[in-house]
Amino acid sequence: MKDLNGVLWLQAVSSLLAASQLVVAQPQTNTQKANANRTLSVGYILFPGFEPLDVFGPLEMIFGMSYYYNMTLATIAETPGPIPARPPLHRMAPDMPPMDLSYMINPQVVATHSFETAPKLDILLVPGGTGNVALEQNNNTKVEDFVRARFPELEYLLSVCTGAITLAKSGVLEGRRATSNKAAWAQTQTHGKNVTWVPSARWVVDGKVWTSSGVAAGMDMAYAFLKELYGDHPLDTYMNNVEYAPHTDATWDPFSVVHNVPGANKTHSLLDCVGPVGYSE
Amino acid sequence: MKDLNGVLWLQAVSSLLAASQLVVAQPQTNTQKANANRTLSVGYILFPGFEPLDVFGPLEMIFGMSYYYNMTLATIAETPGPIPARPPLHRMAPDMPPMDLSYMINPQVVATHSFETAPKLDILLVPGGTGNVALEQNNNTKVEDFVRARFPELEYLLSVCTGAITLAKSGVLEGRRATSNKAAWAQTQTHGKNVTWVPSARWVVDGKVWTSSGVAAGMDMAYAFLKELYGDHPLDTYMNNVEYAPHTDATWDPFSVVHNVPGANKTHSLLDCVGPVGYSE
Repeated sequence: MKDLNGVLWLQAVSSLLAASQLVVAQPQTNTQKANANRTLSVGYILFPGFEPLDVFGPLEMIFGMSYYYNMTLATIAETPGPIPARPPLHRMAPDMPPMDLSYMINPQVVATHSFETAPKLDILLVPGGTGNVALEQNNNTKVEDFVRARFPELEYLLSVCTGAITLAKSGVLEGRRATSNKAAWAQTQTHGKNVTWVPSARWVVDGKVWTSSGVAAGMDMAYAFLKELYGDHPLDTYMNNVEYAPHTDATWDPFSVVHNVPGANKTHSLLDCVGPVGYSE
Repeated sequence: MKDLNGVLWLQAVSSLLAASQLVVAQPQTNTQKANANRTLSVGYILFPGFEPLDVFGPLEMIFGMSYYYNMTLATIAETPGPIPARPPLHRMAPDMPPMDLSYMINPQVVATHSFETAPKLDILLVPGGTGNVALEQNNNTKVEDFVRARFPELEYLLSVCTGAITLAKSGVLEGRRATSNKAAWAQTQTHGKNVTWVPSARWVVDGKVWTSSGVAAGMDMAYAFLKELYGDHPLDTYMNNVEYAPHTDATWDPFSVVHNVPGANKTHSLLDCVGPVGYSE
């Protein structure tokens, strides 16, 4: 039930009860109103060895927003059906024996579409994960081929973690700024032509391309992205229902320091003080 | 490859490079060493309308730890196969028409076992989600029946969000302290006999029962839980690889204030300052 008036009324009541704390929401822009009144076609890529939270961090929030706004979701992989999170056989370096990770647990998520059957997309999200290494070693370029083919039709392209490497391989980062998982920074740097890799950033926005740092950073990027799409409400109500206090400062990237990324900003505090969105202390 | 010595060596090198910041890890206790050297059987319950991040917040971390430690995972539902996150038809109150949420997007996760075929479990996790409301309205008690039946064999039982309501209905919270999602607090209070519901807590531990607040709080509880099971390393290395800065203060619960939970602690700061685990500023 998309009772936005009801939600806003409840928010107003809450604000009366906590008037000293609630920050007044920004009014929706015309673009945000238009987004709220149309259906957005979202695609999420999956591949064997995807990183679970790269997918379900942002996807939880998109799922939550689909209560309020019209969306469709296609989960897209080379072959539809259950896609394993367990990384396939791969080598961590050419001269090393294959890493057999078949002992790891194996959550599986359903892909509803193949690269061939995926519908027209407005928004495409690309996760990272160790599976990327296996794809590369098997000379399997289908994920980046799909990204490259769909890029012109997309309104937004987002990557989480080493999904940025896929974007780099597809060519769409040429001439753009981007970031990636800081623990895998050296691996990231070997990919992409004419990409400005930003060493300290929780996420980077360059035109329609949003790229986040590792895994959990996808959630912070997703909050900023949904805020851009739809505005503060009911997004902030939803965030406080799921009790996530997002990092809203994209320059906060202590992991670039922890992982000794060359050029990391060592003057920024390692700490970020976060709380419920829409409330000041 | 479970090269713990290699991991510790890398950590030591990192500490030399950032000696002013790295906090010395606590040595493993004998119990933690024993846990590291045995196989733990983990079960995660799924039901139609489960909350995605209730599952994949903790499950990402458990997945990550399964690289280092022997574990098995059973995802358990009434019927094995794809389980939809989209909530089934339900009423938000007895006198209201059914809420048809079939327009929401529908990520699906695979259940590998039924309640009947699930193996012996050491650890069982129970998510929340709107699906709980549908189960209750359909007089379907199979989830709490399973929890009740397996409780004696478990070493640990954990719930995320309104999964605590399932635990309450199973009877295992009798005489125990517990918490739940603060946005759904009124609904929680009507369940369970002789349960001490803690109004302000990110998570609560009572014996072998761990219960967290809403959705994202599951990740903070999971970090504390895995730390108890296995100790600081390589857990902290993993947390910094997935770039999640956990909330480690279980008394930080600003959402209990935001949602006007009776008895909430209004003196605690709404903000929590978090950073990479194992590093001080």
